[in-house]
Amino acid sequence: MSEQIVIVGFGPVAARLVDELLPAVRSGKVGLTVVGEEAEAAYNRVLVADLGVGRTTAEALALSDAAELTAQGADIRLGVRVKRVDRARQQVLLSDGGAVHYDRLVFATGSRPVIPNLTGINPDPTHPVLPAGVTALRDIRDAEALRRAVTGGKRVVVLGGGVLGLETALAAAEEGATVTVVHNGPHPLGRNIDRGGGSVLAASLRRCGVRMAGNARSTGVEHNAPDGGFSALLLDDGSAIDGDLLVLSCGVRPRTELAEGCGLSTSAGILVDHKLRAHHEPHIFAIGDCAEVRCPDPDCAPCRNAKGPSGLVGPGWRQAEWLAGYLTLLADGGEDAALLPALPAEQPGVIVLKARGMNMAVAGDNSAEPWDEDALAAGAVNGRPRLQVSQWADPEHGRYVKMTTRGGVLEGLVAVGMPRTAAELVGLFERGAELPADRSLLLRLDGPDQLPGTGAADPAGTVCRCAGVSGAAIQGAVEEGCSTVPEVSKATRAGTGCGGCHEDIKGLIEKHFRAVQAA
Amino acid sequence: MSEQIVIVGFGPVAARLVDELLPAVRSGKVGLTVVGEEAEAAYNRVLVADLGVGRTTAEALALSDAAELTAQGADIRLGVRVKRVDRARQQVLLSDGGAVHYDRLVFATGSRPVIPNLTGINPDPTHPVLPAGVTALRDIRDAEALRRAVTGGKRVVVLGGGVLGLETALAAAEEGATVTVVHNGPHPLGRNIDRGGGSVLAASLRRCGVRMAGNARSTGVEHNAPDGGFSALLLDDGSAIDGDLLVLSCGVRPRTELAEGCGLSTSAGILVDHKLRAHHEPHIFAIGDCAEVRCPDPDCAPCRNAKGPSGLVGPGWRQAEWLAGYLTLLADGGEDAALLPALPAEQPGVIVLKARGMNMAVAGDNSAEPWDEDALAAGAVNGRPRLQVSQWADPEHGRYVKMTTRGGVLEGLVAVGMPRTAAELVGLFERGAELPADRSLLLRLDGPDQLPGTGAADPAGTVCRCAGVSGAAIQGAVEEGCSTVPEVSKATRAGTGCGGCHEDIKGLIEKHFRAVQAA
Repeated sequence: MSEQIVIVGFGPVAARLVDELLPAVRSGKVGLTVVGEEAEAAYNRVLVADLGVGRTTAEALALSDAAELTAQGADIRLGVRVKRVDRARQQVLLSDGGAVHYDRLVFATGSRPVIPNLTGINPDPTHPVLPAGVTALRDIRDAEALRRAVTGGKRVVVLGGGVLGLETALAAAEEGATVTVVHNGPHPLGRNIDRGGGSVLAASLRRCGVRMAGNARSTGVEHNAPDGGFSALLLDDGSAIDGDLLVLSCGVRPRTELAEGCGLSTSAGILVDHKLRAHHEPHIFAIGDCAEVRCPDPDCAPCRNAKGPSGLVGPGWRQAEWLAGYLTLLADGGEDAALLPALPAEQPGVIVLKARGMNMAVAGDNSAEPWDEDALAAGAVNGRPRLQVSQWADPEHGRYVKMTTRGGVLEGLVAVGMPRTAAELVGLFERGAELPADRSLLLRLDGPDQLPGTGAADPAGTVCRCAGVSGAAIQGAVEEGCSTVPEVSKATRAGTGCGGCHEDIKGLIEKHFRAVQAA
Repeated sequence: MSEQIVIVGFGPVAARLVDELLPAVRSGKVGLTVVGEEAEAAYNRVLVADLGVGRTTAEALALSDAAELTAQGADIRLGVRVKRVDRARQQVLLSDGGAVHYDRLVFATGSRPVIPNLTGINPDPTHPVLPAGVTALRDIRDAEALRRAVTGGKRVVVLGGGVLGLETALAAAEEGATVTVVHNGPHPLGRNIDRGGGSVLAASLRRCGVRMAGNARSTGVEHNAPDGGFSALLLDDGSAIDGDLLVLSCGVRPRTELAEGCGLSTSAGILVDHKLRAHHEPHIFAIGDCAEVRCPDPDCAPCRNAKGPSGLVGPGWRQAEWLAGYLTLLADGGEDAALLPALPAEQPGVIVLKARGMNMAVAGDNSAEPWDEDALAAGAVNGRPRLQVSQWADPEHGRYVKMTTRGGVLEGLVAVGMPRTAAELVGLFERGAELPADRSLLLRLDGPDQLPGTGAADPAGTVCRCAGVSGAAIQGAVEEGCSTVPEVSKATRAGTGCGGCHEDIKGLIEKHFRAVQAA
């Protein structure tokens, strides 16, 4: 008899889980039901801003084909909400009146945008009513508002200095809108970047045509547009930033209310152990933005220092892949499932920002400064090498690098305006490799004497960090006939996440064809 | 009839003036009297610390030979003090009861050490009585105290974090003494260096074996040594730094009391105009440490921003050279003297610190930081390019560079632990040359792939900044037979000032002999 698996939510992480479970579905081992609230099957939410500025199409964003999945035996329910989970009866009750039994239930409910508490906006987190001209740019329908603003050369105000807000601002400015980013710290990206890097980043964003309003506390929105829509963002110093569209980019919050409603433990997200199981509930799992890995063992060191859901698609995909294997083993009877190694802990994420004329990468802890007393002293503390910081600052030319190392290995990095140095540092960070003693060697990669294409092109290095695809795998796909980014994405999944590697994939394709022509 | 010139003081600057006046003395055009308070003729005061640690000899420090000068017709009076200048009668009254008439009088009285106001030390600036075990290391006799401490492996406390104090400390530590530098700022060199550079410098000094006690306010000296001499420096927090010798290195103050006594205008030094003439007194001049160039014209911009005597020997030598020419023309009758161009204003000085395993150069204004808002903004202010700052900080490896530019030209530089970068930057600073747009290129000079001897060896560049001698001039002397530093010094005057270029001169000599052997 087949094991009934129900997935609540149909975003990118759920889509990956579905893909990985399909062989078991086709073999009849697993019966699969997916309940998605939106009318569309899974699509790449991270690129909604790109869709808004007209750089991509809704088709290119699609990650799943509902008809295809149905044909393979999955039960896909779109436009339907799970109203309640009945753990005693092991069933989910749907908004259309139906009910579905489960042996295993997977929460993949993702997250929803944080709606700031501003006068003129309903702050109810679960049912925000955004007035005309205000969007959180989360769903595929939100893209239309941005598209109108960009094609009309309108004024876009982005509230929030996080990476998604900055990407939206850069893309909209490049495509012709007048864009202002409003954020409340001294520089964008908050604590992900240090003061020096943040300053240079802000200046680089300005050079890209984005107005930066830092240290700004917004208090409300004004609706004086002819249609009663948004006309200005009001600040606490009495000033206002006029605009035609307000994009809220204030972070996301895990969607946990359904899990809470059925009595599961939650903190920031739904609490799961290292096998992604809800605490004290062997039939329920959670993955992606809604899940928080923190096991019940109080002595587990990684969990003590865990920071809640990452909000990134890559870790969610790795969870989906791992959980598919685990669920398949459970469906087989469970003996082998107990032997499956737990999912490895995620490394700290790398944040990359790329646009015409600007490049930035940050990762890890960048709070130490090179002249901190501690860093200046030699030797180790309690047998552990000290944190050391090297830094190159050339704000006139929009360049900044900070390398925070311990025992020569990066614990944090900031690179602005130095794309090859950034790529090399990210690679060193992810491999945990030791830096050369003369750190200034790394700056040479972006020197004027470096030829294009001679950068740090280690084929074993990761190109798509979201999907974990190496340069070698992409080269392989290109050699087998893929000649566009979408083709490579289809063949390897590279480029289906944040999209930050699209230029790199393009570069690998061009390199291949140059070599073919030269031969 | 010959013109009577009297020089008061016989230090290095007076010695240079005497040398330059000798042709006029020999021809009978000028009658020259030099009055020196010390028993010795002029010697290189800057290297007294080197003499103390046994690195040089009293003979090598000598800059003049009294017997030789007398033989050429000069009247050299040693061990004699000028008690008073009688401007009405144009004569100087001497401590030995004599009187000498002058047509032109030149003050070259130099400066004396600042004696800090500490309990246990008589602070009378003109007649300080230093107790046993305390020295200001100014006169050639002071060297003996340091020599005893160093050869005995004793504890030396240096009070003052200026360049002379640091040089003394480094030399004494290298030669075997236990040395502590006590200074009152957060880092040594005070406002000559910035915070980052100062931190890295302090760490480098520690690595060279010098203990650094910063942010320390000294209040007194303790005399508990068996001979009643110095035993500890007392600090205002109640602590004390034990030692056997206290070297006071708290700066110098121009010796102006004789000039004041005869009614000349003084500020920090004796006020002179651009022709080194005392204000409103055509018969009297001042040069070197005792002179302050600030003309009576209130509209003269350079004088409005002038900073008083530099305390460096190089500018004094340039004044001596210029004044000798001027006095000679005056002795000729004065018609041509009026046409002589005034002495060019001095460029801001370069401070260089070299020791085994450490190298530092600073110059100009280094107070701006790379992330100052002003530096981050683009464009000019009132038609003047903005100040821009590039910075490399790698304190783990004792390296730090800051380049402060305006329109691409250095206005300030700091380089610690990067000798070739330092040399190149100093050259660019002195020439006012534009830096490469990619400032990180300058860091490569100290990269691990640079061969020794391939550094920035521009033969036209200045090697000895004190005496203004180029590498080409030194090479010329070596080709004509000079094979030691003293021989090169005798032939070209290179290396007779602060001594910081001795290693460079040695390098040029060795390079020549390698080339000869290879040929």
